[in-house]
Amino acid sequence: MNHLLSIDDLSPAAISELLDLGDGFVEVLERDVPKVPTLRGRTVCLLFYENSTRTRLSFDRAAKALSADVVSFAPGGSSVSKGESLKDTALTLKAMGPDVMIVRHGATGAPWRVAEWTGLPVINAGDGAHEHPTQALLDALTLRQHFGTVAGLRVAIVGDIRHSRVARSTSSALLALGATVTLVAPRTLLPPDLTGWNVDTADALDDVLEELDVVYLLRIQQERGGGDDFPSIAEYVGRFGLTRDRAARLPERAVVLHPGPMNRGVEIDPAVADGPRALVTQQVSNGIAVRMAVLFRLLAKESQS
Amino acid sequence: MNHLLSIDDLSPAAISELLDLGDGFVEVLERDVPKVPTLRGRTVCLLFYENSTRTRLSFDRAAKALSADVVSFAPGGSSVSKGESLKDTALTLKAMGPDVMIVRHGATGAPWRVAEWTGLPVINAGDGAHEHPTQALLDALTLRQHFGTVAGLRVAIVGDIRHSRVARSTSSALLALGATVTLVAPRTLLPPDLTGWNVDTADALDDVLEELDVVYLLRIQQERGGGDDFPSIAEYVGRFGLTRDRAARLPERAVVLHPGPMNRGVEIDPAVADGPRALVTQQVSNGIAVRMAVLFRLLAKESQS
Amino acid sequence: MNHLLSIDDLSPAAISELLDLGDGFVEVLERDVPKVPTLRGRTVCLLFYENSTRTRLSFDRAAKALSADVVSFAPGGSSVSKGESLKDTALTLKAMGPDVMIVRHGATGAPWRVAEWTGLPVINAGDGAHEHPTQALLDALTLRQHFGTVAGLRVAIVGDIRHSRVARSTSSALLALGATVTLVAPRTLLPPDLTGWNVDTADALDDVLEELDVVYLLRIQQERGGGDDFPSIAEYVGRFGLTRDRAARLPERAVVLHPGPMNRGVEIDPAVADGPRALVTQQVSNGIAVRMAVLFRLLAKESQS
Repeated sequence: MNHLLSIDDLSPAAISELLDLGDGFVEVLERDVPKVPTLRGRTVCLLFYENSTRTRLSFDRAAKALSADVVSFAPGGSSVSKGESLKDTALTLKAMGPDVMIVRHGATGAPWRVAEWTGLPVINAGDGAHEHPTQALLDALTLRQHFGTVAGLRVAIVGDIRHSRVARSTSSALLALGATVTLVAPRTLLPPDLTGWNVDTADALDDVLEELDVVYLLRIQQERGGGDDFPSIAEYVGRFGLTRDRAARLPERAVVLHPGPMNRGVEIDPAVADGPRALVTQQVSNGIAVRMAVLFRLLAKESQS
Repeated sequence: MNHLLSIDDLSPAAISELLDLGDGFVEVLERDVPKVPTLRGRTVCLLFYENSTRTRLSFDRAAKALSADVVSFAPGGSSVSKGESLKDTALTLKAMGPDVMIVRHGATGAPWRVAEWTGLPVINAGDGAHEHPTQALLDALTLRQHFGTVAGLRVAIVGDIRHSRVARSTSSALLALGATVTLVAPRTLLPPDLTGWNVDTADALDDVLEELDVVYLLRIQQERGGGDDFPSIAEYVGRFGLTRDRAARLPERAVVLHPGPMNRGVEIDPAVADGPRALVTQQVSNGIAVRMAVLFRLLAKESQS
Repeated sequence: MNHLLSIDDLSPAAISELLDLGDGFVEVLERDVPKVPTLRGRTVCLLFYENSTRTRLSFDRAAKALSADVVSFAPGGSSVSKGESLKDTALTLKAMGPDVMIVRHGATGAPWRVAEWTGLPVINAGDGAHEHPTQALLDALTLRQHFGTVAGLRVAIVGDIRHSRVARSTSSALLALGATVTLVAPRTLLPPDLTGWNVDTADALDDVLEELDVVYLLRIQQERGGGDDFPSIAEYVGRFGLTRDRAARLPERAVVLHPGPMNRGVEIDPAVADGPRALVTQQVSNGIAVRMAVLFRLLAKESQS
């Protein structure tokens, strides 16, 4: 494993091994001093072209919990506003000596290019509407912790699938681990071509509600074009929102996931978001643990062999 | 002490004890290596919704001088611009495992809500025009260092009292320690109701000037509505500005405080700001020390008992 | 050496000594754990009023590689937007106890004022179109590494000399070390008065191309007024751009430097930027090393004597 660019680069066994490592790091994070010296002297470079609370802070925490140093590049106060190309920014940052680049970018494929240009290990922290592999790992870890296994789980991913890198990466990881996945969305928010996805589809949440173990709600991403793609928020909530009423009709053991940030009152009722089914904050905590696992795998190779 | 939300939650004895701790940390900050290992492994989360140089950097320095890690959340590059609620942001940050949340927010009461939602210790770093308890502590420490005691000091707080969280918190702390406080401002910049403040008022600085030990000048906060509330800057300076002339009429032992940032030439003459009466930079240094004291009190409880 | 404000404050011997130190730190940066404890307990304050990727991150890396702490002041989220003066900001930051201030500001002379006001050691990280001494040092180090010596090198600095602090500082350093320098630019982009520069000028790159050891390309700084000063980008490229064709006519041993960020396709052809003559990424790496050297010189004085 030289990079983590796409979840599809990982075999089911490799995913499971990362989740096992993640479980170990969950235990580290619960210690009184939640820190190990594993990556002391290593430097992690964050190259984030898009807004992000969760993902940036999560990688930052993960790096520091492994005692690595962090160099954080924020396009706001930088040469990007002077028109520097991604290539030159990446090469400049490389020349500062980091051991790994963590890249978030609005363009599909950007992390692959950074890997090619720099020759450094690269972690894809989200590229356009394409991939977000560490999100997929944290989702899988959260479900495996809760249910003991991902195999056999019946999962619905609900919302703006088309513009979602989470839908693509998470469905891929869960399928690899033996879950079945149904995409639930208006036609306009489904990808035009589902060849290779290995999923079912449904066009109303009510059609699948009573046979689910997991409801995975996506944000209605107004900033990405969603909004033009369905008549109104009220109509969206009417067919796809996880209202209190719908939540009550879920099987008893069913849980709710959301990658955040949530639009309370749109895709999820506030009472459901705060209720016992929601594993949203566990997802956040597990995010740090799986990112530690990925950094460990990429940077601590020598010490393992 | 589980939080520091309002200065009114502290007894005079509790305030004095924090100031004693602060004195100890002043000594630490003067050492060649100004750092102690007290909070190694603890994580301090800064959740700042409003602009701030002094307060954010001051808490950051305080945390690091105690060897704590810092997670800093800046709404600019974050989910807030995607409309995430304060509640979800707070819960997300909590899930990243901090030991304390330090909250600055434009809305009165926000830090109380964060405390309620997260169950974590919270320090109020300024909420709206309401409270700013660590500012009150650093002001009290600065005066106690200079005069030996706060008891009996005659203090005037001058300027936009109505929109000032500093006026409220600092007057409360100084009164608790035995000072007397006069609010000096145009009627339009006084709070409509002063019930419970235990202060005198005056509507010109000249009326009280010659009987003061402390002139506490507030910034004319143009961004908060001040400006509409008096005819002109020239008129304000005429009645409330600490000009060179007025400074010369102060009692010899009188000192000048300002929470910063100063508007030189408005509430304070540049020569006065740079003169020997002004304790403004001591306030900044003491700010780090009292914030260390508060963090110590909240997070190092066990090791004391 | 109490400050590094202008390259002209340094004798040729002092420059060489900093470059020797820089060579030593290059070796440190290549270690498995690229860090030395030299400045443990020291605090470096970055006061950057202008956008910068390279310079800010480079100083940050340099400070951390020496184990110093970093306080970073970004005018965006700060009192500057409330109108605080540079003086008060500098005095506030000083009161937080840093050991050195690193200042970038749009106004010529700002770092000198900060030095005067604070009494602290100050490093000029770029003031207006005036000086950028650490850039000059990293350029000199890069050439000395490559050629063994700077003495006798024939250097052309090409582009918007008039608005460039790099041109001024780098030419001064290279001249001090025995190089000859030709400024190549349209008349409108040359300083109106070249008294004291000790350089030749040329108004087309072709006139000097075949006798150069070093082509130093400057960015066409559209944000600083360049753009009004020549008819069109196409015409600029026609006379001053380092095209593939021109690069092929350079002497075999000639190298290309650029302070970044590059405008590929304007002052430099992408193939030249990526080709073997370009030492651009070495400049970036050396930037960290010379900044370590300067910090070491300013802050580790006692331990040397």
